[in-house]
Amino acid sequence: MERRVNDRTRLVVIGGDAGGMSAASQARRRCGPDDLEIVALERGDHTSYSACGIPYLVGGTVPSADELIARDPATFIRDHAIDVRTGTEATDVDLDRRVVRTVDAQGAEREERFDRLMIATGAVPIRPDWPGSDAEGIFGVQTLADGIRVREYVDERRPRRAVVVGGGYIGLEMAEAFLERGMRVDLVEAAPEPMGTLDPDMGRLVREAVCAMGVEFHPGAKVTGFETAGGRVSAVVTEQAVHEADIVVLGMGVRPDSDLARRAGLRIGPTGGIAVDRRMRTSASDVWAAGDCVETFHRVSRAPVAIALGTHANKQGRVAGTNIGGGYAHFAGVVGTAITKICGLEVSRTGLNEKEAQRAGFEFETVTVESTTRAGYYPGATTMCLKLLAERRTGRLLGGQIVGRENAGKRVDVLATALWNDMSVEEVSGMDLGYAPPFSPVWDPVLIAARKLSEKTEASPG
Amino acid sequence: MERRVNDRTRLVVIGGDAGGMSAASQARRRCGPDDLEIVALERGDHTSYSACGIPYLVGGTVPSADELIARDPATFIRDHAIDVRTGTEATDVDLDRRVVRTVDAQGAEREERFDRLMIATGAVPIRPDWPGSDAEGIFGVQTLADGIRVREYVDERRPRRAVVVGGGYIGLEMAEAFLERGMRVDLVEAAPEPMGTLDPDMGRLVREAVCAMGVEFHPGAKVTGFETAGGRVSAVVTEQAVHEADIVVLGMGVRPDSDLARRAGLRIGPTGGIAVDRRMRTSASDVWAAGDCVETFHRVSRAPVAIALGTHANKQGRVAGTNIGGGYAHFAGVVGTAITKICGLEVSRTGLNEKEAQRAGFEFETVTVESTTRAGYYPGATTMCLKLLAERRTGRLLGGQIVGRENAGKRVDVLATALWNDMSVEEVSGMDLGYAPPFSPVWDPVLIAARKLSEKTEASPG
Repeated sequence: MERRVNDRTRLVVIGGDAGGMSAASQARRRCGPDDLEIVALERGDHTSYSACGIPYLVGGTVPSADELIARDPATFIRDHAIDVRTGTEATDVDLDRRVVRTVDAQGAEREERFDRLMIATGAVPIRPDWPGSDAEGIFGVQTLADGIRVREYVDERRPRRAVVVGGGYIGLEMAEAFLERGMRVDLVEAAPEPMGTLDPDMGRLVREAVCAMGVEFHPGAKVTGFETAGGRVSAVVTEQAVHEADIVVLGMGVRPDSDLARRAGLRIGPTGGIAVDRRMRTSASDVWAAGDCVETFHRVSRAPVAIALGTHANKQGRVAGTNIGGGYAHFAGVVGTAITKICGLEVSRTGLNEKEAQRAGFEFETVTVESTTRAGYYPGATTMCLKLLAERRTGRLLGGQIVGRENAGKRVDVLATALWNDMSVEEVSGMDLGYAPPFSPVWDPVLIAARKLSEKTEASPG
Repeated sequence: MERRVNDRTRLVVIGGDAGGMSAASQARRRCGPDDLEIVALERGDHTSYSACGIPYLVGGTVPSADELIARDPATFIRDHAIDVRTGTEATDVDLDRRVVRTVDAQGAEREERFDRLMIATGAVPIRPDWPGSDAEGIFGVQTLADGIRVREYVDERRPRRAVVVGGGYIGLEMAEAFLERGMRVDLVEAAPEPMGTLDPDMGRLVREAVCAMGVEFHPGAKVTGFETAGGRVSAVVTEQAVHEADIVVLGMGVRPDSDLARRAGLRIGPTGGIAVDRRMRTSASDVWAAGDCVETFHRVSRAPVAIALGTHANKQGRVAGTNIGGGYAHFAGVVGTAITKICGLEVSRTGLNEKEAQRAGFEFETVTVESTTRAGYYPGATTMCLKLLAERRTGRLLGGQIVGRENAGKRVDVLATALWNDMSVEEVSGMDLGYAPPFSPVWDPVLIAARKLSEKTEASPG
């Protein structure tokens, strides 16, 4: 019997960034075009780009947006036989009829039949409905298109005063990018310290470095709206002050974009993310999801969590694609690792911070040590600050935070690996980490901190 | 009743470097001078110094030997009430009579009574009995005194041609130090590649870097002796060639210095190191040992191993001191981690290399990946080479080796932590490591290598 093209299984992927395209690529790796047709719908123009690189594009470290694109639509079409349709938004999913309704840039509506569906709709930025929000010169920086728009605005309009609303990773990175472009930068933050994923005592170190570079930090600020002139933003207004602005970036975090999934009847978890199992299957058969739109399992708190990070999206997408393609893979969860470089400081964290540990119901002890990244006598040794949390009764490591200069931040991976394995701080303190004068004092900072914390817990055997 | 000084327990420590003085300090921390008298015997002049810093002293990066001394004898005496006697060698231990016989620099013999004994005699350099070995200008670089002698010889005699025998860590570091002092450097090594703790394919990368800096590398060389002129070395003679030399450094490794312990009747293990349990107790009651003179447990091979490293000595000494002082501590073993920086290359390894894995009876697969230390588009991204070994049937990680430029080497700690926890490469590939463009590509090199290796093992579930 002749094989007919229509016999092919049809996979529709909604969302053409990390999660969606990882899944599509992995499914394709397992099933050739004769067995699996893959259509990927992307409402924007870009696929598979590094959102984390956007601040470097704006700051000028990265000269062109092309460098942030790992694979463009043409590459997927040509090399992977994945029918990528940019400018195409999925508006509805009908699980009974197995169709996705779409609308393209010209407003034309269509229906796409699917046998298997992959949802990777990403995240939506949190945007309060402040008066003046739609003025020219106010930007989010979530998508590559956003980043290109900010870069163009800066290149063309040469703004002199920037206000960044929100002192998280992206806000701080954008503040530094604007400094690099020669602007006066005000950073407006609701909390007392920036970098809310750190504890305030560690956030303070970041604030000091950012302020030393010239950023004006405004803590405890409550934005009420924007002033505009001729349709363009001219100031950010808070309950405390008016900050003049030629350009404004909003970096107040994101939430899972799970609306399409919710309307389709898929189960949504307590975090607002699409609920998935370890194989990235949603509550409906033959429907998978991955990336910023899902919630995942936090291995330390044992609770669901929604963390918008490209690394998770890539891994989850890969897992989904393996399973869609008939293999077996599972996603083992996260431990909450994050890292950034801000104004010369390396900042990283993993596990739970104090607030998160409290919320998860842990009783814990903390320790903060100052150490150096090299032997004290070796040139280039700089101080680094390392904070650890451990469960009081068992000594189980719960989290870690690092703020330091070069060669400090990536040490968080040791803590992430220790958390992954449910190690106690006493165990950590005995580990065989690399020592040589250019890399560490003879007692590695991680070991020192773990030892000191071990002595504070009730599990200390000594 | 009046408390008499003689009621005090008396701890004698043989060896005043990392292992011995860590034990002494920790015992003192637990027991004040009224309860515990501590006498430390050191045959040399120095205590608690960084042997790893010696090449930097010779090369000039570290200006003075004082900087390598963590705590000198006066500090121990004054701040810790530890009676440190330098220039005092322990010649015999009589376990029945509980005395250590000593001889001081003047040849005076004494007996020191002990209630508890701590042996930290360190390691002895491996020195074949080559003709001419005792000529002036031939040095080992094991102790700080050695390092000071080499530095002085270089400062005073201004040698122009250096030959280093042995291409391990210390040999390579000394070769670089001599280059920095402006010498022509020949490196003579018996094996085909330097850095024998790496597999030859990784050692080759080190050789290329070292040669690019100007070192003349002579592989497969078999030293037969030295030529001398007027009592001073003038050449190193191998079966292949004659290498003219104004100064020679021997770096052919060390073995545990367990002779004193053996003569005292303590059990010596198969590696030649003193056998100890996890609490660092020897086979005799009230006698502990730590540091380069003992053998320890390798968590991957599950076999005894003797590894001369200050980090282990410090940890083991601390464990011994805690137990001597009446507390509880244990040393959990090693995974074989080591790191160095050579001619701009960061080189590290952990676990088992191919030869060690074979010897331990593992069937294994390997993978070698080239990746970058930062996102490709981020300035300063350099390539790094990462090799992993995993057990064929189970996928269990067995070892890892890294050769790269800045920010490459310390990543070995993630692998060391994974080995510590018996992780499979599949598990490792799913871990939540820190990603941001200044620190890593979006798929961290460790994750890429683990994933690729996972696909080669029989444990791959996909």
